[in-house]
Amino acid sequence: MSKPVVFVSDLGLRDEFVGVCHAVIARISPGSMVIDISHGIPPHDIRTGGMVLAESLRFAPADAVGLAVIDPGVGTDRLAIAVQTASGHQLVGPDNGVLSLAWAADGGVQRAVSITSPDVVLQPISSVFHGRDVFAPAAAHLAAGADLAALGPDVPAADLIEVHLAEPDVEHGKIGGEVLDVDRFGNVRLNVRPSHLAAAGLAEAAAVHIATLGQEADAPRISTYGSVGVGQYGVIVDAWEWIAIIRYEANAAADLGVQSGDVVWLTAAD
Amino acid sequence: MSKPVVFVSDLGLRDEFVGVCHAVIARISPGSMVIDISHGIPPHDIRTGGMVLAESLRFAPADAVGLAVIDPGVGTDRLAIAVQTASGHQLVGPDNGVLSLAWAADGGVQRAVSITSPDVVLQPISSVFHGRDVFAPAAAHLAAGADLAALGPDVPAADLIEVHLAEPDVEHGKIGGEVLDVDRFGNVRLNVRPSHLAAAGLAEAAAVHIATLGQEADAPRISTYGSVGVGQYGVIVDAWEWIAIIRYEANAAADLGVQSGDVVWLTAAD
Amino acid sequence: MSKPVVFVSDLGLRDEFVGVCHAVIARISPGSMVIDISHGIPPHDIRTGGMVLAESLRFAPADAVGLAVIDPGVGTDRLAIAVQTASGHQLVGPDNGVLSLAWAADGGVQRAVSITSPDVVLQPISSVFHGRDVFAPAAAHLAAGADLAALGPDVPAADLIEVHLAEPDVEHGKIGGEVLDVDRFGNVRLNVRPSHLAAAGLAEAAAVHIATLGQEADAPRISTYGSVGVGQYGVIVDAWEWIAIIRYEANAAADLGVQSGDVVWLTAAD
Repeated sequence: MSKPVVFVSDLGLRDEFVGVCHAVIARISPGSMVIDISHGIPPHDIRTGGMVLAESLRFAPADAVGLAVIDPGVGTDRLAIAVQTASGHQLVGPDNGVLSLAWAADGGVQRAVSITSPDVVLQPISSVFHGRDVFAPAAAHLAAGADLAALGPDVPAADLIEVHLAEPDVEHGKIGGEVLDVDRFGNVRLNVRPSHLAAAGLAEAAAVHIATLGQEADAPRISTYGSVGVGQYGVIVDAWEWIAIIRYEANAAADLGVQSGDVVWLTAAD
Repeated sequence: MSKPVVFVSDLGLRDEFVGVCHAVIARISPGSMVIDISHGIPPHDIRTGGMVLAESLRFAPADAVGLAVIDPGVGTDRLAIAVQTASGHQLVGPDNGVLSLAWAADGGVQRAVSITSPDVVLQPISSVFHGRDVFAPAAAHLAAGADLAALGPDVPAADLIEVHLAEPDVEHGKIGGEVLDVDRFGNVRLNVRPSHLAAAGLAEAAAVHIATLGQEADAPRISTYGSVGVGQYGVIVDAWEWIAIIRYEANAAADLGVQSGDVVWLTAAD
Repeated sequence: MSKPVVFVSDLGLRDEFVGVCHAVIARISPGSMVIDISHGIPPHDIRTGGMVLAESLRFAPADAVGLAVIDPGVGTDRLAIAVQTASGHQLVGPDNGVLSLAWAADGGVQRAVSITSPDVVLQPISSVFHGRDVFAPAAAHLAAGADLAALGPDVPAADLIEVHLAEPDVEHGKIGGEVLDVDRFGNVRLNVRPSHLAAAGLAEAAAVHIATLGQEADAPRISTYGSVGVGQYGVIVDAWEWIAIIRYEANAAADLGVQSGDVVWLTAAD
């Protein structure tokens, strides 16, 4: 029984990159469904790609193989790795941290290997597109039932690169957060959880004052988009339980002038 | 035997929204194929999404479950519904009219239920993303063979919200139509059928005069794109039998300065 | 056993065009996987679409049916064709050359038919969207196991239209190449192979001087993106063994001011 593959990348859908990875997987594991989570990760944004992989895997079939291709170091001496997590997921991608948020959510790494087997990687191996030549074949072999050991030699888990999401600055009455992502609708996700609002004494605030480098706004705490009027701001807990700034049927990020990585300060509105 | 799911949304493909819905469906109904019709519906454009769902279902496998996620009222008290149509399709989406053009094309609603069963919706249920937590699971359960009754209690068909496409203003020699959609190529689809041209006495006109708020042009009636020169206008019956304004290998909408919802007047060209 | 379909088009993913083709294929050949290689081919760019089809087929399952819908002449008297190649692939598309690079890579055409059977094409057949009404059904019938002869009468292979990639101008110390494509990352693919560099005596040059109509730059020969600094140029052999100009974590095409079809001159850097 072939396993499904859950696929995240920054390869975009305009070019043939993602489609060729699908072709490679279909050739090696014809019965595997490939579930495309997103190929619109900002180019080389390892942190966002890793976050999306981790958050989507918990909604996927339990036996899904995670495949992440965000690989600014392709062709350098960074390793290509496959990991078995403590809770049983198999993950494939470059050793640049893109898999680490997923394995952290899974209780850590149980085993890791370097993908080097000539029976797995395509020949000749391009030095610029390991998605096609290394990662897709490795994920497909795992999806077809191969053991991790078939891909290459073991790597010590302690040697693997990890990324971490920055914690917001929390003080009494004030949070300095960072924009994690801006979605299609212009909603602004911050690296702030409801627990941070509570720690800052802002959990009960009916409205929050938002300050960016160039803009300010007051926004009521809301639980549904539709509870503010068209064009009005709101502060909401989003679908992955992050604090997000929205404008109903409008674009909060454009109006606030923020993008991923920018700082946003939250205080109680007067 | 798992049924396929035909999926239309305004969620876009940049973010993980659509992919996570696929993951949820694969977990509940692993054998179901998900056919992505479009996720590029303009945000919150219920009418366009509903039109695309209705028009695509008639090309899909007869047992396909229709899933439409265009949901500006997510988290408010609007219902989440599943509908069985008179001709046998099962449809899932918010009760905001997005399903109504599909059931109208199918002879109406035979049965409708409100999706509330705790065995179906994911827990905890987000108040901002029912695509993942309510609609995708409901469609997946139907695709796996569940009966409508397993999703929740019956709702009277007469209570459901419907949307309708506006009729054009037709008088002798003149039609005032509305832009329904502008496609990737800049082709402008009007809410005008060949029968409206006939009713206005324009069916035999060899060329049509087009007027928008800011532009005018003459366009021959054509039956293939290639029957006008590069950059020239034509008026054509499109693939869903709407009257459309095109420019061969050029962008009619940009040149005419129109977008969805704008008014266009058609008269006979001199 | 249903065969997979490898699908390339210029239809884009915003509209319902591609999704409706998927629906049609699922109706005729429910067990077929559709592998979407790219739907972001520039509108009406037959050469790029044909190149992408040819290059992706060699990574796909051996029995995959190739489907290319780039069809500026839809509704004119151009033929709709299905082709069996010398190496066994079945290809479906308009007779405008879009399939010809794939059959050339496969050793030529073994048999070709004109798709006209009323048992295959959908009725009524639109004059503007043969992707849905002619090509998708034909590919699906082949994927379900039909013989080429079931689609329509034979066409002499010699009558089929072919496209060819222009050769670069190669002289001693200088190559005049053409931009074949610009990808999502802004990497510029030229119609230049490593063999052309050798023929011009540039194979050993450690760095290449690049001149476009408006810009000039020097770029080292590199084998991995990461071997130049952020924002620096490099000349690389890409994943399909074309010479490409890149800027690490930056957009080479935007900076050089080039797009598909533009001319680029390569000489040895001082």
